[in-house]
Amino acid sequence: MSFSPLIRQLIDALRGLPGVGPKTAQRMALSLLERDRQGGLRLAEALQQAMEGVGYCSRCRTLSEAEICELCSDPRRDDSLLCVLQSPADVWAVEMAGSFRGRYFVLKGHLSPIDGLGPDEIGVPALIERLEGSAVTEVILATNPTVEGEATAHYIAGLLRPLGIRVSRIAHGVPLGGELEFIDGGTLAHALAGRTLIS
Amino acid sequence: MSFSPLIRQLIDALRGLPGVGPKTAQRMALSLLERDRQGGLRLAEALQQAMEGVGYCSRCRTLSEAEICELCSDPRRDDSLLCVLQSPADVWAVEMAGSFRGRYFVLKGHLSPIDGLGPDEIGVPALIERLEGSAVTEVILATNPTVEGEATAHYIAGLLRPLGIRVSRIAHGVPLGGELEFIDGGTLAHALAGRTLIS
Repeated sequence: MSFSPLIRQLIDALRGLPGVGPKTAQRMALSLLERDRQGGLRLAEALQQAMEGVGYCSRCRTLSEAEICELCSDPRRDDSLLCVLQSPADVWAVEMAGSFRGRYFVLKGHLSPIDGLGPDEIGVPALIERLEGSAVTEVILATNPTVEGEATAHYIAGLLRPLGIRVSRIAHGVPLGGELEFIDGGTLAHALAGRTLIS
Repeated sequence: MSFSPLIRQLIDALRGLPGVGPKTAQRMALSLLERDRQGGLRLAEALQQAMEGVGYCSRCRTLSEAEICELCSDPRRDDSLLCVLQSPADVWAVEMAGSFRGRYFVLKGHLSPIDGLGPDEIGVPALIERLEGSAVTEVILATNPTVEGEATAHYIAGLLRPLGIRVSRIAHGVPLGGELEFIDGGTLAHALAGRTLIS
């Protein structure tokens, strides 16, 4: 083909991004080369700084370049509530929703015995450690509503109950804006079982 | 929001890529940080090298880090045919098609008087210079099949005819795999006018 070596190398590297196939990578490379070299250099710089500089918050284990992340060090947040999630992306999603003002703790995924991922691998001991001597009175288990996420939530709930901490699970039900006829049976069953009285 | 400064900077820089919105940029940043830091660093390196190293071939004006690109320096190609295109992406597209074995010349877009893009701006003098004393016997005008591309092709054809060079235009007609009922009238009219005898 007719790409010069540097262009070929750029297209190959762009294909490492999620959702980017050969055509898209080619279009991205061309767009940067023809119209936005400054943007390309800015992206190179941002990538290098982030890949080398971003680690994990030592308190909540989300992605952060600071030893303690902004969310953990914000004095205005509620120390009594701890939301347990499966990944940093979930922290971002809950923050975007804007209604939660407590603290977070991020597991490394979910329990998956066949993949060799037990409690130690996903960071359960660190969660217990985080709770020891803390002001947390309620742990909200917000792992994914999947079989593995449920199993992980139940396992952790079993561990925390003896510690005298209130343990809750995010509600399952019909998502806002959905149409009932297109919602799966499992979700509908949960929505019915979890119904609330209209006062 | 809950992104640390380096992550925010990375997401902003990724949004400079064509077709990448805020959600996609966030997913890309997270994917690199959580699963592929080596890939992220490789991309940073590839971007920097390409943005700083890739220029234009002095002969055909396509993107290339070499003074003369691979296509222009390949001795096996036909020097008598010159295909004139609007952008480096078009060179790649024609090369992918695999049937053309001549040389290329890349204009900087098309004529657009309202945007101040005249013959000088799109590189017509360089095309004339490229042809002087060359072995080219036919110029194939492969600008886009748009109003501006047609106008550009006709303008260049008018300039080249007095030089005694054969000037051709790529065929307009029905694209392969299309269904006639969905093809626009202009294209169908061209396809009928340009019909060829079946021998």
